[in-house]
Amino acid sequence: MTQETSQSPALLFDLDGTLIDSVYQHVLAWHEALEELGLSFAVWRIHRRIGMSGGLLVQALGREIGHRVTSEQAQKLQERHVAVYERYQAAVQPLPGARELLQQLSRAKVPYAIATSGLPGGARPALERLGIGPEVPVITREEVQRAKPHPDLFLAAAQRLNVPIGKAMVVGDSVWDLLAARRAGCLGIGLLSGGYGKEKLEQVGAYRVYQDPAELLTHLDEAGIRIVD
Amino acid sequence: MTQETSQSPALLFDLDGTLIDSVYQHVLAWHEALEELGLSFAVWRIHRRIGMSGGLLVQALGREIGHRVTSEQAQKLQERHVAVYERYQAAVQPLPGARELLQQLSRAKVPYAIATSGLPGGARPALERLGIGPEVPVITREEVQRAKPHPDLFLAAAQRLNVPIGKAMVVGDSVWDLLAARRAGCLGIGLLSGGYGKEKLEQVGAYRVYQDPAELLTHLDEAGIRIVD
Repeated sequence: MTQETSQSPALLFDLDGTLIDSVYQHVLAWHEALEELGLSFAVWRIHRRIGMSGGLLVQALGREIGHRVTSEQAQKLQERHVAVYERYQAAVQPLPGARELLQQLSRAKVPYAIATSGLPGGARPALERLGIGPEVPVITREEVQRAKPHPDLFLAAAQRLNVPIGKAMVVGDSVWDLLAARRAGCLGIGLLSGGYGKEKLEQVGAYRVYQDPAELLTHLDEAGIRIVD
Repeated sequence: MTQETSQSPALLFDLDGTLIDSVYQHVLAWHEALEELGLSFAVWRIHRRIGMSGGLLVQALGREIGHRVTSEQAQKLQERHVAVYERYQAAVQPLPGARELLQQLSRAKVPYAIATSGLPGGARPALERLGIGPEVPVITREEVQRAKPHPDLFLAAAQRLNVPIGKAMVVGDSVWDLLAARRAGCLGIGLLSGGYGKEKLEQVGAYRVYQDPAELLTHLDEAGIRIVD
C-alpha cells in the first residue's frame, strides 16, 4: 500500500503591496494621470482597483462613475501612469521581511515565482531592490491574455515552476489576488501591507492573513512550509 | 400630557478623508517625513493611523515597531510633515458631494461643525476649497487637550453649536472618528472615502456607512435629517 504524503507547496507572489511597498505611490500616480486627462476620481476608489491590470482598472473606474473610457484614453492613461510613477519610485522600498523571506525560501529550495499585473518596465526596479535574480520566474502583464482577477498570471507562474496549480499557494495583498487564486484553484494568503483590511481579505477567501512578509516568514509552517535553520 | 418629538440631529464632520480627498497625500507626506528622520515604516501602517493627532500617530507607530520616539523627534516630525504635505496639497480636492452636502445642510438650517485632528494651518486651504465660511464652527487640534480617538474634539464642536452631544452625529472616515464618537456618547456615520473598509467601520460601531459625502447626501433621511427642496 502506497501512502500519499503532502509536499511543501510552491509560492506564487504578487509584487506591488506584497513584496514591495509601492501601492500608495501607484495610487497617487494613477490619480495624477487620470486628472491630466480630465478624469476626476476620489483617491480611495483608485486604491480599491490597484492590483488589476491598468486596462481593467481604467475601465472599472469609468464604469463606477458612469463614464465610458475609450481604448485610446485607456492607452494614454497607462502611458501617463508609467511616466508619473517614475517620480514616486525613488521612495519605494521592499516591505519588511520581503528580502529575508525570499532568501529563506531559496535556501530551503521551496519553489517560488512572481506574478504581477504590472508591466515588465515597472517591475524591474522592484525586482532589483528585492534581490530577485534571473533564476526566479517572473510573469508580467504582457505574457498573459488577461490579468488579475483572471487566474492567468498565477496559472502561468505555476507552469513555469513546473508545479501543479493545486500544489501552489498565492501570496497577495489585494482582493484581486485572492479572487484570482480561487479561480486558479489554489489557496491564497493575504497580506495587510497593501492597505486592505483583514476582514475584506478573509471575506474573499484568504486561507490566512498576515501583516507583511516578515510575519509570513515567521508563520510559514502554517502554510506547510518548513524552514530548517 | 406632553409628547417628546425627536429633533433633527446636528452633524459633526471630520475633515481629511471625510470632506476633502487628502488622506493618501497625508500618508505619503508622513512617510517622507519619517524617512528623513531615519524612521522607516511601511506605508499601510501610516494609513491606519491617519486621523489621530500627529503626536499620537508618531508615538503609536513607534510602539508598533518597538522604537521609542522622543518628544523632540515627534515635534520635528510634525514640522516636517507640514512642510512635505505643502507639496502634495495642490492636487487635493473636495470629495464628491462634499460642497453640495454642506450647502444643503446650511439651506435646511441643520447645525453642523468641523472637528479635525489637524492643525489650523493645514485645515485652512481645505476649508476654503469646501466653501466653508466663518459662520461654521471649526475645532482644530490646538483647541483641545487630546485629539481623536479621545472625544474632546467632538465634545467641543457640539458645545460650540450649543447642541447636547447626544443630539449630534459624527461623520468620519476613520476608525478613530468612530471610536471618538462612541466615547463622546453619540452615533457615528462612516464614509469609505478615507480608504477604510466597510467591515472595519461597522466593526467599530458605525451606525451607517456610505461611500462618500455624495452618497450621504442622498441618504440623510436615514440619519433623521430631512432636506426639503
